[in-house]
Amino acid sequence: MALGIGDDCAIFQPRGKNEELVFTTDMLVEDVHFRRETHTAAQVGYKSLARGLSDIAAMGAEPRFCLLSAAFPVWADEKWKDRFFDGVLDLARKTDTDLAGGDLSHAAVFACDIVVCGAAPAGTALRRSGARPGQPIYVTGSLGGSALGLATQKGAAWKRHLRPEPRLLLGRFLRGKASAAMDLSDGLSSDLHRLCLASGMAADIEAPPLFRGASLEQGLHGGEDYELLFTAPQRIRLPNEFDGVTITRIGSIREGTAGEIRLNGEPLDIKGYDHFLP
Amino acid sequence: MALGIGDDCAIFQPRGKNEELVFTTDMLVEDVHFRRETHTAAQVGYKSLARGLSDIAAMGAEPRFCLLSAAFPVWADEKWKDRFFDGVLDLARKTDTDLAGGDLSHAAVFACDIVVCGAAPAGTALRRSGARPGQPIYVTGSLGGSALGLATQKGAAWKRHLRPEPRLLLGRFLRGKASAAMDLSDGLSSDLHRLCLASGMAADIEAPPLFRGASLEQGLHGGEDYELLFTAPQRIRLPNEFDGVTITRIGSIREGTAGEIRLNGEPLDIKGYDHFLP
Repeated sequence: MALGIGDDCAIFQPRGKNEELVFTTDMLVEDVHFRRETHTAAQVGYKSLARGLSDIAAMGAEPRFCLLSAAFPVWADEKWKDRFFDGVLDLARKTDTDLAGGDLSHAAVFACDIVVCGAAPAGTALRRSGARPGQPIYVTGSLGGSALGLATQKGAAWKRHLRPEPRLLLGRFLRGKASAAMDLSDGLSSDLHRLCLASGMAADIEAPPLFRGASLEQGLHGGEDYELLFTAPQRIRLPNEFDGVTITRIGSIREGTAGEIRLNGEPLDIKGYDHFLP
Repeated sequence: MALGIGDDCAIFQPRGKNEELVFTTDMLVEDVHFRRETHTAAQVGYKSLARGLSDIAAMGAEPRFCLLSAAFPVWADEKWKDRFFDGVLDLARKTDTDLAGGDLSHAAVFACDIVVCGAAPAGTALRRSGARPGQPIYVTGSLGGSALGLATQKGAAWKRHLRPEPRLLLGRFLRGKASAAMDLSDGLSSDLHRLCLASGMAADIEAPPLFRGASLEQGLHGGEDYELLFTAPQRIRLPNEFDGVTITRIGSIREGTAGEIRLNGEPLDIKGYDHFLP
């Protein structure tokens, strides 16, 4: 940043016309996205930034900076606040994302909003609207882990729920390859439904790869896996794995009523995930 | 915007290296920044964007786009939400600020966060750190109106509290003229203190121009007037008025303990304004 925290605004010098900037904003609210009985301050901080970075990954962009607004309730003491910022800053450092500014306030419940700015070569950011008939549909990793973790609050699934990994390298790898992409934040059925709506297409899928122990229901409709969902032209050859994350073909785009999805040939219910907690 | 609401991110194409982008973020929280008994939904929407635009004005920038995150409690029905967005969008339209994206959620109390992006020719954004010894200190308009309005909840002062006007044209006019600038959000004493700290300077002032009916105390320490506070080299001639807003010299920058302010030769208490409500 040309100028960071401490003035009325942060100042950012774009590199030029040959890159485009992408922006995402995500709120994280107590008793909606987390509960303080079950989530540590550092986990809340980590996850608030991870969710924004997952959107940056889904655009095939690299993170540049973030802005953080947070309102703290009276129960949040200095130690909690410090740990929260530690959680944000640890992930910011690991992903080369400058914390450039923000706004601190108070409120009856904890709420924070993270804005992340990313950059990609002009014209290359991955949108949801480019899927075409016959193109394969892919997901990264395995699905349902976060929903399973939310239900059991233990083991690898709970960790997956608490510390989703934004697929930044994989997203960038898909630049120039994927025809449409988004991140899986609300569950495969509703997110694929959205991708199809944006592209004016329908889709046929099989069961997606499931997180160990997760049910098909959790894999199809569970939210917050933060894996990538994307399509690519048939001619594009993709590896089965990139950066340690599997890439699995789960079906194909077809013409039809926009947004309609069939699982093994049968209509699939679109179940919206309401980001919360049992 | 190259791409607005509806994808994982909004896409923004910078015009090139010859301009710099500025970013500000502001939270507005129920029972901290407003009460629903006294503020209409449209007023809450208007003010949330106005506060961000005031920061853009203070940088001498022009607004480009904004991102809005909002968490609604159960009491906020569809009508309230619609009016809230009306309040945001009315001001967005008037100031040529695209609403490019956002995030909607729910919470026990209403909270929203507005991020505004502005642009200025590279190297021209007005910072707080450029004040030098001997330079005159100016404020725009009159001070204390918002604090008076908060106390009385009537008349022009209440309107000033509810509908502050971001000094966008004036801020842009000051580009290349002011040596340091900021907006008056927390009150003259604490904001001038900050400007002096950022510049490593001290200041001598007289009483500022007061909003009709406001006390000197309100003019010196009352928050949320959203006028501009700035300094300029002595050689810069400024009009007494610009775009219908007065410009008044209230004192001078001097060397001394950074942040120290004297009012008519006596040390002035720095009273922090806690954005709240009686």
